[in-house]
Amino acid sequence: MSVTAPASNAATTPDSLTASLRWRNATKKFDPSRKIPADRWAALEEALVLSPSSYGLQPWKFFVVNDPALRAKLKPVSWEQPQITDADKLVVFAVKKDFGAADVERFVERISEVRRLPKEALEGYKKMMLASASLPPEKVAAWTIRQVYIALGVFLTSAASLGVDACPMEGLDKDKYDEILGLPAKGYNAVVAATAGYRAADDAYASQAKVRFPKNDVVAHL
Amino acid sequence: MSVTAPASNAATTPDSLTASLRWRNATKKFDPSRKIPADRWAALEEALVLSPSSYGLQPWKFFVVNDPALRAKLKPVSWEQPQITDADKLVVFAVKKDFGAADVERFVERISEVRRLPKEALEGYKKMMLASASLPPEKVAAWTIRQVYIALGVFLTSAASLGVDACPMEGLDKDKYDEILGLPAKGYNAVVAATAGYRAADDAYASQAKVRFPKNDVVAHL
Repeated sequence: MSVTAPASNAATTPDSLTASLRWRNATKKFDPSRKIPADRWAALEEALVLSPSSYGLQPWKFFVVNDPALRAKLKPVSWEQPQITDADKLVVFAVKKDFGAADVERFVERISEVRRLPKEALEGYKKMMLASASLPPEKVAAWTIRQVYIALGVFLTSAASLGVDACPMEGLDKDKYDEILGLPAKGYNAVVAATAGYRAADDAYASQAKVRFPKNDVVAHL
Repeated sequence: MSVTAPASNAATTPDSLTASLRWRNATKKFDPSRKIPADRWAALEEALVLSPSSYGLQPWKFFVVNDPALRAKLKPVSWEQPQITDADKLVVFAVKKDFGAADVERFVERISEVRRLPKEALEGYKKMMLASASLPPEKVAAWTIRQVYIALGVFLTSAASLGVDACPMEGLDKDKYDEILGLPAKGYNAVVAATAGYRAADDAYASQAKVRFPKNDVVAHL
């Protein structure tokens, strides 16, 4: 897209990044026959794994729903949006239920394992995380859900950068998603979803101009 | 980074995307002497403008704090984290205060303007948005704040893809940010921040292994 070479250590150029973000849209009509190549999908799953989160706690799990029968059950509880069954992929972004001290402990153990550090060396960091995790449960839930939205932003940007279409899907009955997918028994609750694949050639929305407020109304310099 | 050419309409390749997301870290120590080239920063501001949000409502504003005196005031209310003053850029992600019907109306006018549609053609869409915007105020606030976190994910991913270091900053006193930057008078409230620039050569954290749970614990297939 751009003739400028990326800076060292960069995946793309400013022009190519901007072009991919302009090209991106919340795809309303997917081509059901087009599949995402395996290497691109693997990179998008890896993008989810690598998503940043507060303290690095990763209070989430990403459920990729492949079973057509499950997809068919989810469609009526998603305002009958056709993307749920037509897109190649459907990812349900879920948050850890009752996030708390045990989750902090699990993360500390993982740091200790990956960085080969004694757990004692992580006591200070652990205390900070425990302080956040011991706020009132509704505050902790709101905080962890916000982290899930970071992952959603990472996923949508990553998909666009690979030329893969996606659609964030907030209009879903989360309780029904939990029930149909059995998420609470796995320790999670559905938060939001995203479909991914390729837009249909006759997707009328895709050709409409992107609507954004003027830059000066959205970005201010102080 | 990769020898594979990007797919048509893609800004990068799966390998390069993954490499940039692995390279990304929450930079703790910036090199105060290194500035982000203007074209890269312009692309990052554009990424903020282009961020997806529920219905496309963009219930946000991004304050780029350049004034060193303001930065110095923000540092003590950010747990004295050095990134606040050392990074080339500091962006405060803010949410529209008391988001409601007037904001929906403003967006409908913008759609009408950009797509050259009569506002009457947007009545159905407007009704859906008004239904979401007329939930109890604390629910609307939580919903709009979650959208801001999508933009945070877009920004961090975009920065990484351009080889620009960044650090999401949740540990800040939002009320003090509001006060120091005068955000409520402008109609906004601080939510979260991000610093951006280039990591210092002696940033000890940068060389530490990234800690993520194993992929099979984070991504499930149903």
